[in-house]
Amino acid sequence: MSETQIQVPDGVPFIDVSREFEAPRDLVFRAFTEPDLLVQWLGPGKYEMVIDTYDVRAGGSWRYIHRDGDGNEYGFHGVFHGDPSPDGFVQTFEFEGAPGHVSLDKLSLEEREGKTTVHTHSVYQSLEARNAMVESGMAEGMNEGFNRLDALLERLATLAPVH
Amino acid sequence: MSETQIQVPDGVPFIDVSREFEAPRDLVFRAFTEPDLLVQWLGPGKYEMVIDTYDVRAGGSWRYIHRDGDGNEYGFHGVFHGDPSPDGFVQTFEFEGAPGHVSLDKLSLEEREGKTTVHTHSVYQSLEARNAMVESGMAEGMNEGFNRLDALLERLATLAPVH
Repeated sequence: MSETQIQVPDGVPFIDVSREFEAPRDLVFRAFTEPDLLVQWLGPGKYEMVIDTYDVRAGGSWRYIHRDGDGNEYGFHGVFHGDPSPDGFVQTFEFEGAPGHVSLDKLSLEEREGKTTVHTHSVYQSLEARNAMVESGMAEGMNEGFNRLDALLERLATLAPVH
Repeated sequence: MSETQIQVPDGVPFIDVSREFEAPRDLVFRAFTEPDLLVQWLGPGKYEMVIDTYDVRAGGSWRYIHRDGDGNEYGFHGVFHGDPSPDGFVQTFEFEGAPGHVSLDKLSLEEREGKTTVHTHSVYQSLEARNAMVESGMAEGMNEGFNRLDALLERLATLAPVH
């Protein structure tokens, strides 16, 4: 299992994340864009993941909810800029618990020798907003999600090989 | 006529612009969101402004072209995040001459004693992209546009007073 690399540069409102997956790029892209796959891995382990909308196209909206054991819901939403492709995609991101704070996320997928590295570059409207995202436990939640994605990609490779 | 204030902070990939207009907020909002009005003022004076798409709603796409006297075209496009309202709106922005470089623009409208201050806060994916935008002559182009907007708002106030 690969390690998640998270960079939080001083004084610049960015978060950069990289992670390598043992799967070809097309399969990783499917796991990021098909709701039936995404729902199986995204987000911290302690929440139930519920996808409300996931319309993967230029201008398409997305929204999902993390629901905890007490029924509390944490919603997130945004919109795709440009047509998502296996090269990657750009989307806006807003946590509904902090309305009005929007970030811009760029995801790139790079394949090498059958493995795919996912890079995300997120830019925030302020350093404070970036820091709040880091302090929200983002790293742990992402890592738990990526570990489930590793397992999902392994299952998918067995069930329905793309190559 | 008011002055355009442009802030380009050192080391942080932001551009902040403010300008006061002698018109109520609802009218300024119309001038930013109705294509028939927007086409009359946006952009540098040396270009013809052509609106291809301007779908002002959450997830709606926009695209316009600046055309010079030789027929060269410079396209720009993006998508609205959230529902635009007279409080403001958030949108993505991409110059088609530098594909893949996307910024996130937040526009706010604040009314005080019948005048409206427009603030834009733009965040870029890199300092280099922010600096390239500054060096493209953005300030001059915005200022020329805002001067035409001043004149348009005056005509609109005479023709169809909202208050």
